[in-house]
Amino acid sequence: MDNYRRRVQYYETDKMAIVYHANYIKWYEEARVYIMEQMGYSYKAMEDMGIMMPVLSVTAQYKKGAQYGDFVDIAVKFTKFNGIKMGFAYTMTDAATGELRMTGTSEHCFVDRDFRPVNIKKKFPKFYEDMMRYMEEQNG
Amino acid sequence: MDNYRRRVQYYETDKMAIVYHANYIKWYEEARVYIMEQMGYSYKAMEDMGIMMPVLSVTAQYKKGAQYGDFVDIAVKFTKFNGIKMGFAYTMTDAATGELRMTGTSEHCFVDRDFRPVNIKKKFPKFYEDMMRYMEEQNG
Amino acid sequence: MDNYRRRVQYYETDKMAIVYHANYIKWYEEARVYIMEQMGYSYKAMEDMGIMMPVLSVTAQYKKGAQYGDFVDIAVKFTKFNGIKMGFAYTMTDAATGELRMTGTSEHCFVDRDFRPVNIKKKFPKFYEDMMRYMEEQNG
Amino acid sequence: MDNYRRRVQYYETDKMAIVYHANYIKWYEEARVYIMEQMGYSYKAMEDMGIMMPVLSVTAQYKKGAQYGDFVDIAVKFTKFNGIKMGFAYTMTDAATGELRMTGTSEHCFVDRDFRPVNIKKKFPKFYEDMMRYMEEQNG
Repeated sequence: MDNYRRRVQYYETDKMAIVYHANYIKWYEEARVYIMEQMGYSYKAMEDMGIMMPVLSVTAQYKKGAQYGDFVDIAVKFTKFNGIKMGFAYTMTDAATGELRMTGTSEHCFVDRDFRPVNIKKKFPKFYEDMMRYMEEQNG
Repeated sequence: MDNYRRRVQYYETDKMAIVYHANYIKWYEEARVYIMEQMGYSYKAMEDMGIMMPVLSVTAQYKKGAQYGDFVDIAVKFTKFNGIKMGFAYTMTDAATGELRMTGTSEHCFVDRDFRPVNIKKKFPKFYEDMMRYMEEQNG
Repeated sequence: MDNYRRRVQYYETDKMAIVYHANYIKWYEEARVYIMEQMGYSYKAMEDMGIMMPVLSVTAQYKKGAQYGDFVDIAVKFTKFNGIKMGFAYTMTDAATGELRMTGTSEHCFVDRDFRPVNIKKKFPKFYEDMMRYMEEQNG
Repeated sequence: MDNYRRRVQYYETDKMAIVYHANYIKWYEEARVYIMEQMGYSYKAMEDMGIMMPVLSVTAQYKKGAQYGDFVDIAVKFTKFNGIKMGFAYTMTDAATGELRMTGTSEHCFVDRDFRPVNIKKKFPKFYEDMMRYMEEQNG
């Protein structure tokens, strides 16, 4: 699956002249949405159908700060999917040099507009099957 | 009416080591909400009643950048209120030295949750009268 | 000159479910940097040479809020260039429908790393001439 | 040690009408800076002396989203200090109800302006001793 490429914007840097650390976590979202779109699933379309994927947890390990104008490649892996929860792992490298910038993870659940859990297997069997197959292919 | 005091946070600076210019416009909102609360009106309560105040326009004139850790005083003036639209003017100065940081304005309208115009005089006469009286006092 | 296309990210929306108004002003920067790069000038390269372009003023007129997942086209025009100051005008439209989202302007000056004014005509004659020629072409 | 109290701003919410998850991580910084100031240490003063505390890692576990206008209390604990690295744990609760919002951690190192490691024990013995004593008191 393709990486997501992201350029550092001026407003994402801080007075250390590197990307402010919380901003990479915004990029997680851009990257996982991009990956899911490549599989044919639009997060916007999911929300329009009444499904939201709030974040349960994130982790981030920072290696070296990206600077203004840098291009960063974000590789995304599915680490978990069981129809109730979903996990992602992210690896960010400099697009020019390949040097590691940071790694991280996020975990999500599926809820409806009132934040009640949604069972994806029942409500969206096609998405469930596609994700299960993808998990197998990726890991096997 | 009291000024609103705001401290510069690290994540609000950029690689020039001053506050990123768009961030001051977020402070406009903090400052006008603060001022309205001093008059007894909570923007949260207004939204809970179904009234939103989207922004029609903003302007900003930057004099000197505020730096990390600085305290900035924001003076807010009502420049317009007619029950349909509402205008504010902002003056930001360094809290320690009084030196001018920037000035700006914002203009707003009143809408319901479907973004349809709300006539404040009809729907919230008390707020209308309070605002009209305040405009008179301020300007007269 | 090409427009700059920008997709609305989740973290740019607010509880009104539209882009928070100050965020469009961050897009101004992305758009003007993009336009200058098409002319062969990198803002990063300029900063590396010791020239910064802080913002003197911005204005914004909001017509209709962009929503999560929307693509927005940003047209940029040069409104001023005299070697001391530089102005831009922005028009944002929905990429799918062409509907107007907002318009705005920004004005900048040229300074060195100590925020002292830089005379572009003297220091960077090639950039000065390119910009002057471009202004003529655009306006004439 | 006092908690740090923080009010949710409009621009911190997203279209789910709760605080966007990456924004809590900005609050970590506000909270740990506040706590260190109560001990007599200003992060700004440290940076002015040439010491920076970049973030090595963060974690966040989200329980329930804070909403616009809510006040959130952030309790900070030191989890590690050895003169090379420093760790913090954060617990955020609703100021009105005490309900848990989220928990998290961050880990930092000490570097100079060129991002080279700084040995705090050698360079800033008073800070080192104060922190060591505080760690003991807190944990013992």
